[in-house]
Amino acid sequence: MSVADELLKANEQFVKNYNLGDLAVRPRRRLAVLACMDSRILFERCLGLKPGDAHMIRNAGGIATEDALRSLIVSHHLLDTQEFIIINHTDCGLLKVREDELKTRLAKKMGTGAGAPAHFHAFDDLEENVREQLRRVKSHPWIPKHIPVRGFVYDVKTGALSEVEAA
Amino acid sequence: MSVADELLKANEQFVKNYNLGDLAVRPRRRLAVLACMDSRILFERCLGLKPGDAHMIRNAGGIATEDALRSLIVSHHLLDTQEFIIINHTDCGLLKVREDELKTRLAKKMGTGAGAPAHFHAFDDLEENVREQLRRVKSHPWIPKHIPVRGFVYDVKTGALSEVEAA
Repeated sequence: MSVADELLKANEQFVKNYNLGDLAVRPRRRLAVLACMDSRILFERCLGLKPGDAHMIRNAGGIATEDALRSLIVSHHLLDTQEFIIINHTDCGLLKVREDELKTRLAKKMGTGAGAPAHFHAFDDLEENVREQLRRVKSHPWIPKHIPVRGFVYDVKTGALSEVEAA
Repeated sequence: MSVADELLKANEQFVKNYNLGDLAVRPRRRLAVLACMDSRILFERCLGLKPGDAHMIRNAGGIATEDALRSLIVSHHLLDTQEFIIINHTDCGLLKVREDELKTRLAKKMGTGAGAPAHFHAFDDLEENVREQLRRVKSHPWIPKHIPVRGFVYDVKTGALSEVEAA
């Protein structure tokens, strides 16, 4: 059985016991979270978030890419979130690689450079990486200055969230 | 108290009872999920995913943008996922807007067109939107052809996942 089929089985059970009520499209806690795609950060457990509470924007690294900024803009302007948090984490896959080496290696493996991402967003300083994402979000002309934007590191060994102060 | 402070409080409790063990950076079920950022889809409940199981890539709409493709490439080539699923959902914020109208409205609201996303990725046909994302992922030169990519619609009223067949 493929994993997708296993998820469909799990979903059948979920539907039978569905009790989330009628949740609105606008997040109840008016929060958007930008975080890494890492499998070890599940927001319901780690942050006490419940269905309907917050937008969850996630990519490799938890980077404020153009696409993540698009999502934050949609989140605030269309769906009225009023607070953003950014989460990077220890033991991130992108902490262990070098941008150029990765591009060269994958182009060789795949037999073509076509389709290579413009940036992988590899990084070597975790806290500085969080600060860089804070800067990108806070300086965006379509993100109003009154929105609080805070940054955190999630420790995958302890489950603890630590705040990173903006520079 | 800000929502971020509430999450930090919730996280303190989580850390006290932390029992996830030593989870590896490579997702145990070798799966990557690309889904909308919508607050109503919590994967632990809806899909039976556990911490450590799968990469979670999420943006406004659940769109296979360049950034989402970057994340899928990192997920497969660096962290060995072998199966992808794409999830869009009913009552999506991007189903209710028109690309040009949105851009004009926000440029006016913010007093500048600078920083406008190149695309908002608004759409008007939910199933066709899923098929479009399937096409983008499957046709990418750096996504190997042997990786199964399946698409789904999540119904926010019932919690049910329905498969969308690729065209």
